[in-house]
Amino acid sequence: MVQPRFDVLGIGNAMVDVIAQTSDAFLAENNLLKGAMSLVDADTSQRLYDKSGPGMECSGGSAGNTVSCLASLGARAAFVGKVFDDQLGRVFAHDIRALGVHFETTPALSGPPTATCLVLVTADAERTMQTFLGACIGLGPDDIVEDEIAAAAVTYMEGYLWDPEDAKAAFLKAAGIAHGAGREVSLSLSDPFCVDRHRDEFRDLVSNHVDILFANEDEIMSLYQVASFDEALQAVRNECKIAALTRSEKGSVIIAGDDVHIVDAETVDRVVDTTGAGDAYAAGFLHGYTAGRDLATAARIGSICAAEVISHIGARAQVNLKHLVAEKLGA
Amino acid sequence: MVQPRFDVLGIGNAMVDVIAQTSDAFLAENNLLKGAMSLVDADTSQRLYDKSGPGMECSGGSAGNTVSCLASLGARAAFVGKVFDDQLGRVFAHDIRALGVHFETTPALSGPPTATCLVLVTADAERTMQTFLGACIGLGPDDIVEDEIAAAAVTYMEGYLWDPEDAKAAFLKAAGIAHGAGREVSLSLSDPFCVDRHRDEFRDLVSNHVDILFANEDEIMSLYQVASFDEALQAVRNECKIAALTRSEKGSVIIAGDDVHIVDAETVDRVVDTTGAGDAYAAGFLHGYTAGRDLATAARIGSICAAEVISHIGARAQVNLKHLVAEKLGA
Repeated sequence: MVQPRFDVLGIGNAMVDVIAQTSDAFLAENNLLKGAMSLVDADTSQRLYDKSGPGMECSGGSAGNTVSCLASLGARAAFVGKVFDDQLGRVFAHDIRALGVHFETTPALSGPPTATCLVLVTADAERTMQTFLGACIGLGPDDIVEDEIAAAAVTYMEGYLWDPEDAKAAFLKAAGIAHGAGREVSLSLSDPFCVDRHRDEFRDLVSNHVDILFANEDEIMSLYQVASFDEALQAVRNECKIAALTRSEKGSVIIAGDDVHIVDAETVDRVVDTTGAGDAYAAGFLHGYTAGRDLATAARIGSICAAEVISHIGARAQVNLKHLVAEKLGA
Repeated sequence: MVQPRFDVLGIGNAMVDVIAQTSDAFLAENNLLKGAMSLVDADTSQRLYDKSGPGMECSGGSAGNTVSCLASLGARAAFVGKVFDDQLGRVFAHDIRALGVHFETTPALSGPPTATCLVLVTADAERTMQTFLGACIGLGPDDIVEDEIAAAAVTYMEGYLWDPEDAKAAFLKAAGIAHGAGREVSLSLSDPFCVDRHRDEFRDLVSNHVDILFANEDEIMSLYQVASFDEALQAVRNECKIAALTRSEKGSVIIAGDDVHIVDAETVDRVVDTTGAGDAYAAGFLHGYTAGRDLATAARIGSICAAEVISHIGARAQVNLKHLVAEKLGA
């Protein structure tokens, strides 16, 4: 088999985050479901933005965040996602390429503008997200380039991709190419409400297309509609090669057949904004995994990355993760 | 005289900052003058952006930052500045209005896009700025609305306004209206290189049009082409009603005729990004001044605001300045 050109290729909704501080009262007044990602149309997105405080714009998107962290870790990363050819689309493309991520998806020239996610951060560091999918609905099978997918050791996809209709076909096409080339496929379940929207399809995906699954406690319990984490563990156990299950401050649990690892969370002085914690964990884990580290070390790297990202506003790392991980692992 | 409807109306270049971390080596390789604001054309701006690391977009502009801090202080603030009707222009308008600042300047519908300032922050917290003036060149006398200017106790203008040609006429028109209505006019010298570009005109302005002058040590020495701060103090002494001169960690000196106040800087745990320090100081000072506080207290409020802004990335306050100042002054 040809050596992979990329360690990880991520496929996801390409969007720019608009991060604003908010209060629980604002969330309540506007019937926003705290902690969740909700999909909103252009008008609702505009209406909520108009009512929100001053923002800070940062490139985002779940898989986009993951590949950005991977690049910061020194991994060879690529991204597939759809922006519009507008100012925010150019911001997204600049930011991801500036880190060295290969990103060549053709931007849309007609249709809705680049997607935005209004990230409302409360004083308890919880984030509530309102996503306008915009140009992301234009991502389809034609955007999946066989040479790129076949060249990646792992093709990683965010569950949120199941929301825009044509992206599902892109997702399945990519999974087929990856497996055909002897590569692996990874999925993040993204959000318990996203799991709720697509439960049956996600179960099928996990059973039949996914090698490495990322999910947090709420997501995996939602997937199998069970009341406890232990039941969820049993349910996922033989469904895919590896399941990396995150539990916030309780760390993570990795299951690979009979092999189970419980890994502590990294301590964080002050949690400022939890946006991107799962994305960063996935990046760290996949970096360790593709670099041939054992699963427990891969999970530890994931925890280190997540701890960095939640210590500040914004979903992407603000320090060189390669140096940070080397220092923490004492390498 | 009618009571003012606004405490301060700011006039300035409306722009969005693109903040990226950088190294001294990058500045050197690209012949960028560390610590300065340089004007660049669209192509140069794009070329430097392409070479820069991932960015974070935040509304900026010197006077825009000042009125934003004023609003956060609880003052009644207004802004006049020109954006284009594009995504970044809407970001600027949203952010300033979200704070309660009155901002009704008509956006441009033709010509260059909204101005951007590439803010390159080095590890020593110094910022080096490359400004593409974009739509700001469209600001002219027609954008000065007599009712707005006459309704402001102080009309505040940034020296950078002297860079786009038509803004000078807007500036002088506003000063005339303000004085005609019995109000006051304030100017910030903005940058020693800006002073270099417009020295004779700035001296004339300070002597003949300005009541309250803001300048830092380098700027005031450049204005009068003297080698020491003491000489600059003597030179500015009788040129305008009040001169508020900032000296970074050495605090500030306020001169009002024979009245001189030396005010300490606030201590800051860690200086992260000095962008906006002068803008925030001017906001605090003008808030104290228009609220009828004595000059030393006004300067102290300026120092408190500046200390907040330099403690994080981005030129605008991230906490409620009214509460912060109340706490610090023990009010």
